[in-house]
Amino acid sequence: MDIIVLRPGASSKELHNITKKLESKGFKANISKGTERTVIGVIGDTSKITEEESSAFEAMPGVEKVHRIIKPYKLASKDFKPEKTTIKIGENIIGGKKIHVIAGPCAVEDKATLLKIAQEVKKAGATFIRGGAFKPRTSPYSFQGLGEEGLKILAEVRKKTGLPVVTELMDPRDIYLILKYADVIQIGARNMQNFRLLQEVGSHNKPVIIKRGLSATIKELLMAAEYIMAQGNNNVILCERGIRTFETETRNTLDLNAVPVLKNLTHLPVIVDPSHGTGKWDLVAPMAKAAIAAGADGLMIEVHTNPADALSDGEQSLKPTKFKALMKELKLIAKAVGREI
Amino acid sequence: MDIIVLRPGASSKELHNITKKLESKGFKANISKGTERTVIGVIGDTSKITEEESSAFEAMPGVEKVHRIIKPYKLASKDFKPEKTTIKIGENIIGGKKIHVIAGPCAVEDKATLLKIAQEVKKAGATFIRGGAFKPRTSPYSFQGLGEEGLKILAEVRKKTGLPVVTELMDPRDIYLILKYADVIQIGARNMQNFRLLQEVGSHNKPVIIKRGLSATIKELLMAAEYIMAQGNNNVILCERGIRTFETETRNTLDLNAVPVLKNLTHLPVIVDPSHGTGKWDLVAPMAKAAIAAGADGLMIEVHTNPADALSDGEQSLKPTKFKALMKELKLIAKAVGREI
Amino acid sequence: MDIIVLRPGASSKELHNITKKLESKGFKANISKGTERTVIGVIGDTSKITEEESSAFEAMPGVEKVHRIIKPYKLASKDFKPEKTTIKIGENIIGGKKIHVIAGPCAVEDKATLLKIAQEVKKAGATFIRGGAFKPRTSPYSFQGLGEEGLKILAEVRKKTGLPVVTELMDPRDIYLILKYADVIQIGARNMQNFRLLQEVGSHNKPVIIKRGLSATIKELLMAAEYIMAQGNNNVILCERGIRTFETETRNTLDLNAVPVLKNLTHLPVIVDPSHGTGKWDLVAPMAKAAIAAGADGLMIEVHTNPADALSDGEQSLKPTKFKALMKELKLIAKAVGREI
Amino acid sequence: MDIIVLRPGASSKELHNITKKLESKGFKANISKGTERTVIGVIGDTSKITEEESSAFEAMPGVEKVHRIIKPYKLASKDFKPEKTTIKIGENIIGGKKIHVIAGPCAVEDKATLLKIAQEVKKAGATFIRGGAFKPRTSPYSFQGLGEEGLKILAEVRKKTGLPVVTELMDPRDIYLILKYADVIQIGARNMQNFRLLQEVGSHNKPVIIKRGLSATIKELLMAAEYIMAQGNNNVILCERGIRTFETETRNTLDLNAVPVLKNLTHLPVIVDPSHGTGKWDLVAPMAKAAIAAGADGLMIEVHTNPADALSDGEQSLKPTKFKALMKELKLIAKAVGREI
Repeated sequence: MDIIVLRPGASSKELHNITKKLESKGFKANISKGTERTVIGVIGDTSKITEEESSAFEAMPGVEKVHRIIKPYKLASKDFKPEKTTIKIGENIIGGKKIHVIAGPCAVEDKATLLKIAQEVKKAGATFIRGGAFKPRTSPYSFQGLGEEGLKILAEVRKKTGLPVVTELMDPRDIYLILKYADVIQIGARNMQNFRLLQEVGSHNKPVIIKRGLSATIKELLMAAEYIMAQGNNNVILCERGIRTFETETRNTLDLNAVPVLKNLTHLPVIVDPSHGTGKWDLVAPMAKAAIAAGADGLMIEVHTNPADALSDGEQSLKPTKFKALMKELKLIAKAVGREI
Repeated sequence: MDIIVLRPGASSKELHNITKKLESKGFKANISKGTERTVIGVIGDTSKITEEESSAFEAMPGVEKVHRIIKPYKLASKDFKPEKTTIKIGENIIGGKKIHVIAGPCAVEDKATLLKIAQEVKKAGATFIRGGAFKPRTSPYSFQGLGEEGLKILAEVRKKTGLPVVTELMDPRDIYLILKYADVIQIGARNMQNFRLLQEVGSHNKPVIIKRGLSATIKELLMAAEYIMAQGNNNVILCERGIRTFETETRNTLDLNAVPVLKNLTHLPVIVDPSHGTGKWDLVAPMAKAAIAAGADGLMIEVHTNPADALSDGEQSLKPTKFKALMKELKLIAKAVGREI
Repeated sequence: MDIIVLRPGASSKELHNITKKLESKGFKANISKGTERTVIGVIGDTSKITEEESSAFEAMPGVEKVHRIIKPYKLASKDFKPEKTTIKIGENIIGGKKIHVIAGPCAVEDKATLLKIAQEVKKAGATFIRGGAFKPRTSPYSFQGLGEEGLKILAEVRKKTGLPVVTELMDPRDIYLILKYADVIQIGARNMQNFRLLQEVGSHNKPVIIKRGLSATIKELLMAAEYIMAQGNNNVILCERGIRTFETETRNTLDLNAVPVLKNLTHLPVIVDPSHGTGKWDLVAPMAKAAIAAGADGLMIEVHTNPADALSDGEQSLKPTKFKALMKELKLIAKAVGREI
Repeated sequence: MDIIVLRPGASSKELHNITKKLESKGFKANISKGTERTVIGVIGDTSKITEEESSAFEAMPGVEKVHRIIKPYKLASKDFKPEKTTIKIGENIIGGKKIHVIAGPCAVEDKATLLKIAQEVKKAGATFIRGGAFKPRTSPYSFQGLGEEGLKILAEVRKKTGLPVVTELMDPRDIYLILKYADVIQIGARNMQNFRLLQEVGSHNKPVIIKRGLSATIKELLMAAEYIMAQGNNNVILCERGIRTFETETRNTLDLNAVPVLKNLTHLPVIVDPSHGTGKWDLVAPMAKAAIAAGADGLMIEVHTNPADALSDGEQSLKPTKFKALMKELKLIAKAVGREI
């Protein structure tokens, strides 16, 4: 069901053309003439009308606006699948009672550093190690990651600690490399609408964490998930990581409202990245706690043994001691909302 | 200390004019010639340089940019007063260990309704009653509030329940009316930069809750507090209530990052309004819990016995039963962060 | 005509309650049951439904969303009055073929400076002098304007140059003072939703320039105009002056799209302020030209004989020589779009 | 030259650590102790400090903030190359006196339609044909383009009309296909920070139009250009196409301020896309005129013979008759600013 509102003074010929076009596409038109506007209710399965067709109706003479009633995503929608999705990765189930914390450095730098960080975060209660081998950097002159070398280090650290590996895919040409080493593929915020990349990860069965784009609406995040699911991969985890607003005290504005909104709209698990979301290490702890209180299924937190020497994002990384203290606090919050870490 | 960056190729005469102007205002200029830019460090008490003087320097030939190092607010700053401010209102202390919940309808409608709501929220643990007698409405055709009649109802309800009254001042001409009936004056988001109104409430000693404007930065919120404090009234409570972003799933984007950021910058108490902040009743509970977890000193929550008949903001009001259930959950969260409700 | 969309699975009792409530308010309900959603078309004069009543419907059990079809403003709407409004101020007609340029300093500083500026801008082709006697400053420590002294200087300068005076009203308590001296009252961006101030200027017949708020939508700007017009004053001029976005290269983002959008929606004249809109003097000329090309009826431009000594907004003021050169260019653009300056 | 501001109360040991770290990287530290803050001026070629290193300094104990003085882009900067870049494509020079108009449908649909459109726009004065063979669609269920078939149609239409072809590259795996058929490669807004794609087009010599991302700052657009240029391809054209703001009357907010701002910062040509920038066909003409008045070097305009049947973006496409009328008006504006079409 969609609604087409006509301009005041739309002619009966314009109305006729619209209803004819609707009928040619298999819909019925329910016309209501109000005192100020004429409105057409479109009867039929309008979920099959694409955004493009809808916009073409908006281009027709006499049309003021098209209101869409049906959500443009289906597989990702709770209407379609009301029960929560859980995703099993090794021993870990994401989307269940247990809240998972994915921790590690922004970029993989060397084996000794990563191993040390992994051991520390595991001891504190983290259940996944993260680290980038391919890094999307705003400057071409910045460190771009170690590439396959970094992936190998991740795999070795997994072997030693048992922590499954989360790492980012930036380029469809690297998919088999990533599939070989990673347990969970991360799609970064800047690639949330890199539709070819989404189709690529949708064609495999590996779990995917998709991060919300800096200026992506919640609906667009769900459409990105839909892209992956439409290829057959239902193992999708959504990640809020801060949106771009006018505020400059934080690097981004971590939008925790997205957590309960997504919980209302989708069956997919939702996690939060307060490190990128705020861009400042001293905001990570309060926002991590708030994320759990708001209902998140997990967290992604940057930890580095020596933030001031990190090759990237040092200003938002926690030291292991701070991370350990935070994990203790998170356990209390998790319990207060009926969950566990 | 401010920093003036010169354009590449700025002439020595331009540099001379800038240093002369600085000296005429009592400052010293510390000139560093780098390989790509010349930079002037301004030595002296630059906190006295107004934004206007700073912008005038930016207008001088040869200047590329002025970086301000000193915060433009002082009385509101933690640099100036490191210990937390607490505000005593009757028996209640805002800014201490106890978290306060201010509850009530958006607008005062009639005595029976308000009394009923006040009794319910008090039973659930709220410590203040809120309700607007003067309402800032985006449409001139909407209900504008009962005026003094509404204030009288608030006062009667206070008498019966003991709950202190929070109500909004919209017009400096109403100040004495509000002072007569209210325990706390609320300045609404749309008036956050109504500087005359700020000066007016600054001239009295009554506690003030100032709500962050829809597009106000955290710095501007602190400047608004500074306006009030510069007149002598230090009883200022800051309230995050949602900012305007591109996202449309929520009416506003409640910016919980503002809580820890403000805690870093100011000694003033910080509360959160998840009702206006999200605009949807089913988001109030998760975001209220998240606000406490993030460190807020209090909450402002809309409660109405019959949201579907409320004269305003029905879609974001909780029914008393839902409010009661929320208060129970909030107590657990408060305890988890070492506080109480 | 409004549209109420029900949640999937809404009960027939919920549907019944909604239609009953509609009928109690004098509307008819046209129910369409689609394959995925049930939709209620509200038949009757829904322009009388306030935002509050609409939001109360949204709070009813079973309701997913209310789509409003009718615009919430009426007097300001082209639907209501298709022919363009023109406003006569002395010899000048705003909203006609001739494009008017309002020029002058941000704040009135002293008589000699203002007179000099007025003479220069008049010579270059400006038809109004602007200057603030009451200044809304973000810092309480900034120059707040000369008050009545400034208004007297403006009146004297008008006497000597014949240029009508545009000046800002910040406080309803100053209305009679402003009425005494000004030819056009300006409502600043930060007061666009100071509803009491709008009602005050609506109660007199003096022309009003209302500036779009930093985070105001175009619809909200029209609602602010509606507030003034609802009191009886139809002499309203709308002014685009930049909105707040994430971009930091400009102080604000001058939104020239607002010009043709407003021309589609309203009969009121539309002017543009490229000085505040960009915050940088070297962007004023290109954006002033673009504003005329986009269809603006006038411009408001800051001019100061000595920007580096201006008491406010020096970095966005043009010197008279630059202003003169710009006016020449503007004449060519005006001619190219079939108008004149 | 960068500036490091210390927190109030930073210890002398913290200061020592910072200066030691600076010296280890080959810089000198110029320390100024003000009354309220200590500030370190970093002496040396700070343009080599990456964002990551800068952020690592911000993570050091005692540091409040790092102010960067040097622009992070170099090859794209006017500081580096003051004279304007012109790009020759066939007979056409972009960035010179002549303003170029690139016109055509959003997507290539079939040969007859594209040829008809190409002939019409050529007759009206357009100098390039545009059309997508690979389309980035927000829904996986929308028409995704004809692929190579579409590219072949573009090449045939070029052969018949002589108009060079502009078409989008979405996936680095398609680069050789695009190189084979296109005269100019377009990088879409959603791929502006798809860094691997940027590196790919940077490795060939084909001219590139890079569109500003929906939430990209002007600085980030220049960094994206820098990515391409750092690989050796200097034939980069920047395109403003609307940013995401809170306003909903337009699909995006076309930010014409970007035109003069970019002209101040870079030597690269700047064009404007008012079709995507506004999303509504009736705003295309006024904003196209405004873009020329603001100083743009070209326009990209969607034209379709039958917008209501277009497979994408019908609501923002002009019919050939409207396009022809617009071209006439644009010629007048171009002349008024000393250029030609």
